[in-house]
Amino acid sequence: MVRSSGTKRAILDAALELAATRGITGTTMDDVAERAGVAKGSLYYNFSSKDQLFEALLEEGVGALAENLRAARGTLVGWEAIEALVGALLDRIAANAALAKLMASEIFRTDRAWQKTLFALRHEALAVFAEAIEEAGAGAVAPDAAAPASGTSTIMAASVFGAVLMSGLEWLVFEPERSRDEVAAAILASLSGAFAPR
Amino acid sequence: MVRSSGTKRAILDAALELAATRGITGTTMDDVAERAGVAKGSLYYNFSSKDQLFEALLEEGVGALAENLRAARGTLVGWEAIEALVGALLDRIAANAALAKLMASEIFRTDRAWQKTLFALRHEALAVFAEAIEEAGAGAVAPDAAAPASGTSTIMAASVFGAVLMSGLEWLVFEPERSRDEVAAAILASLSGAFAPR
Repeated sequence: MVRSSGTKRAILDAALELAATRGITGTTMDDVAERAGVAKGSLYYNFSSKDQLFEALLEEGVGALAENLRAARGTLVGWEAIEALVGALLDRIAANAALAKLMASEIFRTDRAWQKTLFALRHEALAVFAEAIEEAGAGAVAPDAAAPASGTSTIMAASVFGAVLMSGLEWLVFEPERSRDEVAAAILASLSGAFAPR
Repeated sequence: MVRSSGTKRAILDAALELAATRGITGTTMDDVAERAGVAKGSLYYNFSSKDQLFEALLEEGVGALAENLRAARGTLVGWEAIEALVGALLDRIAANAALAKLMASEIFRTDRAWQKTLFALRHEALAVFAEAIEEAGAGAVAPDAAAPASGTSTIMAASVFGAVLMSGLEWLVFEPERSRDEVAAAILASLSGAFAPR
């Protein structure tokens, strides 16, 4: 991942702020230039089009997320790996709620110019969860639950990812008075069979 | 919930189809009239503004979802209630992927005219999960997991809801060859402590 600085950074930050409230479609290059405080020539020098700008933004964000998840997991295995990944994803969401909201609304769209890039990066982030899930032995399900079919670790990874994404945003948007650790504990409880038969 | 028919129904369906690919911001009232095959006068007779149209659309969709979840749960308790709710939500997502995508991108936006309506309905749908979770005794967590703080059942409900929403869309968009039951089993495995210490 290339870390951007100076003008490029200001443009990316402005684009994210605007898109978080107005959506990508509601954000124009004129708006971005104004918010970033750069001339339009400079904006187009750095990003040739709005599509290219948002592709770079999502690429940077989701790419950094995958890196971050991999680092958080380190050499942990089993439930400890899941705990570390849930915590790391929750922290990323808290650190950049605007990006998390944008991701939530973009990851399943199939009409965007940046679809291919986002698909690859999304898959990379999910793969970190899927690997941990496979290693944790997803076969050991609750006694009366149907056993998951083989090869469903990406579906399970999406399930865990979605659990953290939605409850993380629920926390930030609607219950900001809660502590990070309370929220992490609630998510882990929901994933650890708290309400499943034992 | 009021079921719409005739012209109103055609308008709502057209608006959903358009918004699912272009987003709400990218959809104009002109587009909606054209897609629905109605005159603009008729469109504005039924919905006075684009905001009112999308508020009605989300109200209908999320309201129906809450009703549907409540019916699916019926008198079930414990893990059986969770299983029924996960299955019912997954089926709703499969039946109307366009609406599920729109919900995923709208539920955390706080800048929309319909924010209050959507907030109330979202809460209603989550409440069905939260009640089932509370009754299933969320206290019984895995031995070495931190106990969830009291009153976090809405966070846990968001976690379960997000798990189903994201894995459901993952299935429909990226792994459509899987069966509904495979996907439901994978989600339930991820929520039943399949990879948690026992």
